[in-house]
Amino acid sequence: MGNTRERIITASAELFRRNGYTGTGLKQIVSEAGAPFGSLYHFFPGGKEQLGAEVIRHSGMRYAELFDIFITPAADPAAGIEDAFAGAAVTLRETDYADACPIATVALEVASTSEPLREATAEVFNAWIDKGTAVFRRFGLSEKDARKLTIAVVTSLEGAFVLSRSLRDVEPLAVAGEAAVAMARQLMNEPAAK
Amino acid sequence: MGNTRERIITASAELFRRNGYTGTGLKQIVSEAGAPFGSLYHFFPGGKEQLGAEVIRHSGMRYAELFDIFITPAADPAAGIEDAFAGAAVTLRETDYADACPIATVALEVASTSEPLREATAEVFNAWIDKGTAVFRRFGLSEKDARKLTIAVVTSLEGAFVLSRSLRDVEPLAVAGEAAVAMARQLMNEPAAK
Repeated sequence: MGNTRERIITASAELFRRNGYTGTGLKQIVSEAGAPFGSLYHFFPGGKEQLGAEVIRHSGMRYAELFDIFITPAADPAAGIEDAFAGAAVTLRETDYADACPIATVALEVASTSEPLREATAEVFNAWIDKGTAVFRRFGLSEKDARKLTIAVVTSLEGAFVLSRSLRDVEPLAVAGEAAVAMARQLMNEPAAK
Repeated sequence: MGNTRERIITASAELFRRNGYTGTGLKQIVSEAGAPFGSLYHFFPGGKEQLGAEVIRHSGMRYAELFDIFITPAADPAAGIEDAFAGAAVTLRETDYADACPIATVALEVASTSEPLREATAEVFNAWIDKGTAVFRRFGLSEKDARKLTIAVVTSLEGAFVLSRSLRDVEPLAVAGEAAVAMARQLMNEPAAK
């Protein structure tokens, strides 16, 4: 079960992902976490905004590991990207289109409304970009191209989640994966597979 | 100024885009619209959810015209896509990273929480896909390839908005545009421009 502080963070992450930051109430969080209400302000004296920033960093940073899981063992970047998008499609379908990016909903909600929360999402996206760039460099790409490919993968994935969750269909995820793969092949100077 | 009903829809669209659906209050809407509170339930007896669905359809559907503005007059799909992403970057910078997709924030917020609102976002995305498919077909692409290219453009744009608004930087928009262009060139059998 973990300790109370961890349970609060885990419950918040799940609620933010499904209902957004604004749509999640503190009472809902303590109830899901099985924690007394007072413990929330004990651990997060800054209230919901402090908790939100911690949840964004905590749940977001872990996702950087996905580059190691999908891309590092792949034969080449294109194959790794194909596996990553196929894995996301399975997860999305299995969770009834709920379980997508842990921070995208919050990132759009807070981009123009909370500077501390926006900064937390920016830290996470920058961490993903740095991680992906390092992983793609191992396939011989220059720093510039590896960074470009990472950003293409992350933007394709995020945009596909928006459409796939709305349409309840994995078609956008499949197509966005193909666009990222097209860029990988171009950067690796591989022939395009139409 | 338009009539009261229109002013309520326009004010809501602007507030939803910046603060999200959940983060926008009805009092804020009537205040921005310069409308008496009672008029809101007069025009939208179903309350916030009915208003939300109309705002999504109203502000979302207009964006389908962007395919006519950017893609129709272009020399080829790749050039049109480049123009569209460059235009989005200018708008994003000029509005201090606030003015991106009119329905993406709401789409992520409601995907797992309100079926009527999710359906409204799905109608809009499907309308964009149909419109883009028709426009790209005029360049000689098959129905299947034109649809694929449209979905790649929309997902690239949506994902880039998430990262660009968070990072307050147009780099993700530029890279996502290149990924969509890479797919356009591949589908048109043009040589890739590295």
